[in-house]
Amino acid sequence: MRKQTTKGKLIILGAGPGDPELITWKGFRAIRDAKVILYDALVNPELLKAANDSTLKISVGKRAGEHSFSQDEINELIVKYVQQEGHVIRLKGGDPYVFGRGYEEKEYAELHGIETEYIPGISSSIALTGLQDIPLTKRGINDGFWVITGTKSNGKLSKDVSLAVQSDATVVILMGLRKIEEIAALYSQEGRSNYPIAVIYNGSLPNEKIFVGKISNIVDKLKSEPQDGPGIIVIGEVVKLHPEYVYNFVNQNFVEQLSQQG
Amino acid sequence: MRKQTTKGKLIILGAGPGDPELITWKGFRAIRDAKVILYDALVNPELLKAANDSTLKISVGKRAGEHSFSQDEINELIVKYVQQEGHVIRLKGGDPYVFGRGYEEKEYAELHGIETEYIPGISSSIALTGLQDIPLTKRGINDGFWVITGTKSNGKLSKDVSLAVQSDATVVILMGLRKIEEIAALYSQEGRSNYPIAVIYNGSLPNEKIFVGKISNIVDKLKSEPQDGPGIIVIGEVVKLHPEYVYNFVNQNFVEQLSQQG
Repeated sequence: MRKQTTKGKLIILGAGPGDPELITWKGFRAIRDAKVILYDALVNPELLKAANDSTLKISVGKRAGEHSFSQDEINELIVKYVQQEGHVIRLKGGDPYVFGRGYEEKEYAELHGIETEYIPGISSSIALTGLQDIPLTKRGINDGFWVITGTKSNGKLSKDVSLAVQSDATVVILMGLRKIEEIAALYSQEGRSNYPIAVIYNGSLPNEKIFVGKISNIVDKLKSEPQDGPGIIVIGEVVKLHPEYVYNFVNQNFVEQLSQQG
Repeated sequence: MRKQTTKGKLIILGAGPGDPELITWKGFRAIRDAKVILYDALVNPELLKAANDSTLKISVGKRAGEHSFSQDEINELIVKYVQQEGHVIRLKGGDPYVFGRGYEEKEYAELHGIETEYIPGISSSIALTGLQDIPLTKRGINDGFWVITGTKSNGKLSKDVSLAVQSDATVVILMGLRKIEEIAALYSQEGRSNYPIAVIYNGSLPNEKIFVGKISNIVDKLKSEPQDGPGIIVIGEVVKLHPEYVYNFVNQNFVEQLSQQG
């Protein structure tokens, strides 16, 4: 079934969540040795500086709303460059197998007789909460976390969200900001309008920005200070550990006490 | 509320899933510069070679069944060494905030006036499936993944598992091998005894071993070839993409065809 094998190789490589120093040691070495790098829009350009000057570096785009190459075109570029140049790196934000379509590219390359290697990356779904002083899990608070995409290929919200609202797991939703009103409504229907929620924009980068609130007020908070760039949604009791949540809570109780004394 | 601040710092650092090359660039540099490293049993000793000869390297154990230091003792060691030596690294397998109790150590250190930093690591829950050619997510198959601990502090199985069995998300269970019969029973009760499941031992290491099967036969498969070392459980349709699953399936159909012809 397989076509003739070529000498080249495709490395499907996770760049991590944004901060270029969060790439793996193995990934760093791969970039240094690459002949061709096909990179996504979410990849930090700083990482490309580790490559040789002679390395061909091609942006294949893919950012919400924008479009440069279709998935079919990317697949064809991979095959073309492996055959022409040998080692090719497909550099993707976060981890390539977490909503990255990395596996589809791997399958396409292998159908064309190309050897592939996966080098994992730090997923935004795991690291960005921790970098904001919110642990994904904590003993006594929860037993795990659930990562869900907010953008299905059919445009609908995943039915996983309806199940997730019943859970005490930390729920992390990637690519879900356009659906945040719908998500908040599902939690409210479950009687969880006071449940803690955070939204992190541009996580691990210098322009990082976090909004911390409750299901009932997060949409208004986001509207009050619109942000650019990718964002993740984090829902669960662990959000209460964020310093801003603690501050708001203490502050609110203090104001209430004052007004009672008043 | 806080005690006097010290000059030192605690870095809570994720070592990644096993392969020492899967540490982050930032983590690698931190190890190189550390005065003291307190490391867990699941950390690959190769990583310690990146540190200076003069760096104090202390194993604080913690592996299922074994015991060297209690959590309280580890907390006290952290404070003691930061005060005595300055920069201390707490090196933990995977990511420190995924079931690692890393956040508890951070809180304890901060209560003692110590500055802390979190450097994320590649979580076993994300990378080990991909390294076995199983993507955590794939368009058209699922919308996400759910990571659950199999070992709660009270010894019981998390009630998240009862909810997870209803989901199409990939379910990854860490530290759950002692509860695999109970987990399989929950899936069977949900009518999913044919659902695909895999167990990966010593992921990303030279002695890695995977078992691929169905809910109905995984327990027997594991018993037929008992393994040492840590293992993760992966449940979901994506397991069908593993080459061994494909092979078994094709093979079984071929045998059935032959016997029908016979």
